[in-house]
Amino acid sequence: MASLKSWFPIPKSSHFSLANLPFGIISTTSKPSPRPAVAIGDHALDLQEFAASGAFSALGFDASVFSKPTLNDFAALGRPVHRSVRKYLQDVFAENTAHADVLKNNKDLQGKTLIQRDQVKLHLPMHIGDYTDFYAGKNHAFNVGCLFRGPDNALQPNYTHLPVGYHGRASSVVVSGTPITRPNGQILENPAATPKVPKFSPCKRLDIELELGAFVCTGNEMGKHIPISEAAEHIFGYVLLNDWSARDIQAWEYVPLGPFLAKNFGSTISPWVVLADALEPFRCTGIPNETQLLPYLQEKDENNVYDIRLQVDITPAGGSTTTILNSNGRNLLFSFPQMLAHHSIGGCPMATGDLLGSGTISGTETGTEGSLLECSKGGKETIKLNGGVERKFLEDGDVVTIYGVCGSEESGLVGFGECSGEILPAPKI
Amino acid sequence: MASLKSWFPIPKSSHFSLANLPFGIISTTSKPSPRPAVAIGDHALDLQEFAASGAFSALGFDASVFSKPTLNDFAALGRPVHRSVRKYLQDVFAENTAHADVLKNNKDLQGKTLIQRDQVKLHLPMHIGDYTDFYAGKNHAFNVGCLFRGPDNALQPNYTHLPVGYHGRASSVVVSGTPITRPNGQILENPAATPKVPKFSPCKRLDIELELGAFVCTGNEMGKHIPISEAAEHIFGYVLLNDWSARDIQAWEYVPLGPFLAKNFGSTISPWVVLADALEPFRCTGIPNETQLLPYLQEKDENNVYDIRLQVDITPAGGSTTTILNSNGRNLLFSFPQMLAHHSIGGCPMATGDLLGSGTISGTETGTEGSLLECSKGGKETIKLNGGVERKFLEDGDVVTIYGVCGSEESGLVGFGECSGEILPAPKI
Repeated sequence: MASLKSWFPIPKSSHFSLANLPFGIISTTSKPSPRPAVAIGDHALDLQEFAASGAFSALGFDASVFSKPTLNDFAALGRPVHRSVRKYLQDVFAENTAHADVLKNNKDLQGKTLIQRDQVKLHLPMHIGDYTDFYAGKNHAFNVGCLFRGPDNALQPNYTHLPVGYHGRASSVVVSGTPITRPNGQILENPAATPKVPKFSPCKRLDIELELGAFVCTGNEMGKHIPISEAAEHIFGYVLLNDWSARDIQAWEYVPLGPFLAKNFGSTISPWVVLADALEPFRCTGIPNETQLLPYLQEKDENNVYDIRLQVDITPAGGSTTTILNSNGRNLLFSFPQMLAHHSIGGCPMATGDLLGSGTISGTETGTEGSLLECSKGGKETIKLNGGVERKFLEDGDVVTIYGVCGSEESGLVGFGECSGEILPAPKI
Repeated sequence: MASLKSWFPIPKSSHFSLANLPFGIISTTSKPSPRPAVAIGDHALDLQEFAASGAFSALGFDASVFSKPTLNDFAALGRPVHRSVRKYLQDVFAENTAHADVLKNNKDLQGKTLIQRDQVKLHLPMHIGDYTDFYAGKNHAFNVGCLFRGPDNALQPNYTHLPVGYHGRASSVVVSGTPITRPNGQILENPAATPKVPKFSPCKRLDIELELGAFVCTGNEMGKHIPISEAAEHIFGYVLLNDWSARDIQAWEYVPLGPFLAKNFGSTISPWVVLADALEPFRCTGIPNETQLLPYLQEKDENNVYDIRLQVDITPAGGSTTTILNSNGRNLLFSFPQMLAHHSIGGCPMATGDLLGSGTISGTETGTEGSLLECSKGGKETIKLNGGVERKFLEDGDVVTIYGVCGSEESGLVGFGECSGEILPAPKI
């Protein structure tokens, strides 16, 4: 694939090549109202200012969506509009642009719209109505199932028939860079003792979950459903997601209705939404599913997931950074269109801004597990960090950063930037 | 308790006596924009019009909250404001009101603000950010546990230590009167067969869950918590809640992460929010909990739930209405303040408009079970309706209506009106 060359300087190593152009919400010291922007190289293009110049007028959509504090109104216009806006911006930034008057030869508008990214504050890109977390990372489900039930019963009988999922907490989804406070809660220190009496304690088994998230652009009416053949058109784009997890709180609370406080103290997403179209060149097959799926989950294209190289780093307070694991977006048994088709099959109304999490994306080899629970074999083994530091679970002051990127520097990287959070100590109660 | 007498005609049998004054969102043919109102007898007081007359000016709050399409902004003002507004309206409607000029002697304002309730359309009272459903009805948890695991293991070890709960689907909460479409989904017809292969089918075990719901008025910052001593002040008011449930979809999907599509096709609430203050006279003790609770769940007042008489009716299409069960709001092991203190103990940010469901409220006797699953002993026995009609679970065309009321006609009823929904057939897919 040939690189899209630009008249505008874009570092080769940037996640935000012209092949990407992800959307986010920014604010600046001089203009503190949050507004939409596109990331390009080391810069952000202020879409509110850009739209105000009339630059979108030929595209025939209501560009007032770029004066809103979230991307919801833009997302709600649907994928054909996202597609034409991204294509147009690629044209505007192309080396031999046919729209040179718009920006290339317009220094005044460049000054108004192109802001260095290290000067912008990033906000949650969408107002999230509902957040659902799936469990489609089969290797993770198997690894965790082995820890709890042994390899023969690791996966439940429903696992390969449907994308298992549960409702998450929308209010606790935060943007990369937001600190995460270690939760207090009920913990059963000795599960074998009788009677079982929990203790009140800060979480001692604080974990990450390496996931991808998808934002819904257009939904469905309650009582209707989104057919699998149309599901992809309902997805706005993708982000990285760290579904922080309190394993000890989870173990005690989760029967019989599922995880609750173990998950709702914070979930971090990367700030730039990579449009579904930008990921098209990186489609690939996921984990093969030998189960005959019911028709409402059958996709025509076997290449239904994305080849996204994923990486997780830990930086202890005052220490150096260690990459603790690498995984890949292909490690999923179900695709996001399948998750969406399943979610709505009973008539659940999906809406613009809903966030779907993939579930933890683990590979099969050592060093590819998407959670510390798996890396440390349930807390039995230590994970070696640089400088002789060891971890089983997270300590206060640790900063965890997830990266995700597709493609090559030659053809232009399509990446997610970073999804990062620092652990703050639990409050004294 | 002496009745609060009014110069305005309020039928004795009305749920909306002067002792109540619940808040809702109405619209009318002549004025279709949704706005806040208070229910009083057979009428609704249009609070937007009432506020426009300057009638609230002495109370010193921003009455523009009554020009909004939800109650969120009013709720966010906090319980002291709700208290003073309700008290003031009680004064305005009192027989010997000291504010006779405001409404009693102001026929013009009466004409503008007092609308017959059968002329108003009712909307969702709040914008619901997140919906959490608890499981605090111990008799229900025990009855269902017996069906699945037998009486010795009916309740899980965590059950009496914390209010078990899970995240629900905010987008599928609808106001009374909204039809509910029977969900399609995956069903395992023969759970004993090997291998387990699900079938695609309309739900065949469609059920109700009789619950109370509480709306949050003021929340907490992420990473902080709401102390139990302050939790009651964070609750705006209460509604009836029917958490419609697809038992066959639930049985197949719910391991290991909890109910999902079995619950997110619709949850119905009653339209009028009964303020926490209106329920104060009906405080009572709940189900005794012999477990020593951790301090963050310990309440000073043993009277932490409400004596609300609950009733469920079924009306088959073209048939007559049968009351199938009666229960009471006292049948809870944990109070709503305890649920809120627990929900936030790990730092989960609660927000104005969050809805908490109690879990199914069952008594211990036959005829007091809060779900058909319990009434029919897991579908083994039939429930007799009038006219020789029988049910195990719901049929298409059935209308289910929940009622809830406190107090007596002498002292003025404090009721919730009705929480109703009709079952529509599943779509053909």
